[in-house]
Amino acid sequence: MKPKSQIVNLPVYKPGKPIEEVKRELGLEQVIKLASNENPYGSSPAVLEAITKEMTSVSIYPDGSAAVLTEVLAKHLGVEQNKIIFGCGSDEIIALITRAFFLPGDETIMADQTFSVYKSNADIEGAVTIEVPLKNGTHDLPAMLAQITDKTKAIWVCNPNNPTGTIVSAEELVTFMDQVPSNVMVVLDEAYYEFVTDEAYPQSVELIDRYPNLVVLRTFSKIYGLASLRIGYGIARPEVIDLINRVREPFNTSRFGQVAAIAALQDQAFVQDCAKRNATDREWLQNEFARLGLPYFPAQGNFILVDLSMPSGTAFQSLLKQGIIVRSGFHVYPTYIRVSVGTAEQNRAFVAALEHTLAENAVARP
Amino acid sequence: MKPKSQIVNLPVYKPGKPIEEVKRELGLEQVIKLASNENPYGSSPAVLEAITKEMTSVSIYPDGSAAVLTEVLAKHLGVEQNKIIFGCGSDEIIALITRAFFLPGDETIMADQTFSVYKSNADIEGAVTIEVPLKNGTHDLPAMLAQITDKTKAIWVCNPNNPTGTIVSAEELVTFMDQVPSNVMVVLDEAYYEFVTDEAYPQSVELIDRYPNLVVLRTFSKIYGLASLRIGYGIARPEVIDLINRVREPFNTSRFGQVAAIAALQDQAFVQDCAKRNATDREWLQNEFARLGLPYFPAQGNFILVDLSMPSGTAFQSLLKQGIIVRSGFHVYPTYIRVSVGTAEQNRAFVAALEHTLAENAVARP
Repeated sequence: MKPKSQIVNLPVYKPGKPIEEVKRELGLEQVIKLASNENPYGSSPAVLEAITKEMTSVSIYPDGSAAVLTEVLAKHLGVEQNKIIFGCGSDEIIALITRAFFLPGDETIMADQTFSVYKSNADIEGAVTIEVPLKNGTHDLPAMLAQITDKTKAIWVCNPNNPTGTIVSAEELVTFMDQVPSNVMVVLDEAYYEFVTDEAYPQSVELIDRYPNLVVLRTFSKIYGLASLRIGYGIARPEVIDLINRVREPFNTSRFGQVAAIAALQDQAFVQDCAKRNATDREWLQNEFARLGLPYFPAQGNFILVDLSMPSGTAFQSLLKQGIIVRSGFHVYPTYIRVSVGTAEQNRAFVAALEHTLAENAVARP
Repeated sequence: MKPKSQIVNLPVYKPGKPIEEVKRELGLEQVIKLASNENPYGSSPAVLEAITKEMTSVSIYPDGSAAVLTEVLAKHLGVEQNKIIFGCGSDEIIALITRAFFLPGDETIMADQTFSVYKSNADIEGAVTIEVPLKNGTHDLPAMLAQITDKTKAIWVCNPNNPTGTIVSAEELVTFMDQVPSNVMVVLDEAYYEFVTDEAYPQSVELIDRYPNLVVLRTFSKIYGLASLRIGYGIARPEVIDLINRVREPFNTSRFGQVAAIAALQDQAFVQDCAKRNATDREWLQNEFARLGLPYFPAQGNFILVDLSMPSGTAFQSLLKQGIIVRSGFHVYPTYIRVSVGTAEQNRAFVAALEHTLAENAVARP
């Protein structure tokens, strides 16, 4: 049984360590996970109510077209319903796009470094990935433009970028889009859209009619606090959505995912409150990094990439022993860790642990 | 933006009509859905408890490796943990298999007619589907064997077959497997495994060590009553599972799906009770069809394909108006409908409606 040759040596995605596993392994009672950019305030109370109401329908297939959710989201975004597609997280939309559009030998352009799922899916399809170094941790759009050839099928722009947390501005995006040929898809991954406070950030949904080659991805896993339920979405012109839909499995989202997303959308006060707290606490963390003399990238999501000037694996282990899980191992940033913005209390505990880690490794540092 | 040429004209899967939609469209208060082979008894009470307990973790990503569920299922099946992979329904495992293994021009063999998701996924990958007519509604394994060429990548055997409900026996399967070259994958879809009462039915999991090219698919959507939660699984040799895993998205099942599946597995009394009721009520329905002079295929799942000797679309609409949703439109069986076995009460309501439908169309019938 011969698989596609390109999948044989694909690396398997390494998710953030689950809290339960860390507790068990290290015999810790309390563990703070700041590794997967989840919402530390959970989700809207309306979500749990919606799930409870839906419990009587566990045995019944979900509505594969997610009709009610589509209606509610379309109204919320101010777009037509046929411009929306839902996935098992926005991860799945990435997979569906590549499955619908990528042929072996096609080229696809992305930042180095960015969210790993773009490349893994391009690899599966046998497409060639062109990775363009970030410039000061930010997408270098002119350099990405320069890489476009006749073979380019799509360009991925993660905005804010994961793991650096930086953004491209509306002005930069529009200048970029004006130069991208209309046969090249631009996928704008806005998983952290709701956390952005910089006014220069684009309102991308408004750009979809202007650029038929633009696909915007968003998710309910981050600020909406529904990571466990696996639901995200894509927004694009109807003819693009229609093509992606052709490779979608009939029931790719769950009943709970759909009703929870509806309830979450209807509680925008919760979202605004979380965004406000995140902005305050993100600033507090950045000030602490400045106080400790640690370089970091200006963050617009709910996470910060910070330079500890020591191997990130060492820092990760040291923090883990103190009951704090962060993310390490970014190949372009071997001395950086990515830490999610937690609650004020979690952030204080993290900084205390971090100071201990820094002190412990002070001798070894330059 | 050029998609893969093969996806442009792919038909979109038509799921069973949702109850809510039918109620709205026809102004009916009570609607019985016997269209999607769901469990009419819901799921184990333990499932709702498990979901309730998990509610505090809605905002936290699931364990992508489903470690605890894997452990529980491996024990239940009596197989090693590395022989199991979970998907967003067994549908997703079908998609993953094709995505990992199928190249354009590869050939894949399946029955005509069978579950449509095999063909749609083969189409997406640009593989060539060889459809082998059923013989008396049953997989014609010798005829399928005869279609194997150097290009054959996989053979799909749906057992019991959807929509006919017939099975291939252990003896037939082993004779078949002995003749399939070891480089051709055989995917045995056992979504309805737990409903089978015929003792000739294979215990396929025991065959996996003997046939390294065998992949068995099962699901929590049917007898376990978790259709809304999207969780199914595949069982195969570790080296096969490892390859399928390489194209799996990191978080393809939800927290609720995982804990519900664990709870469901641990309540085998519920499963046995449902299987017993299904067997009794399936026989009752078959006797009613015999009484009404309607040919049907000997059913081993929780559904029956029955010949109404009228266009199935007409029958579907007539039943729909009476508040009963069934499935019609099987191209090989244009005068048949597929009806799920419901509760005794639902089945009686269905038969009453069916008699009305038959009477209404008596003039038009031969």
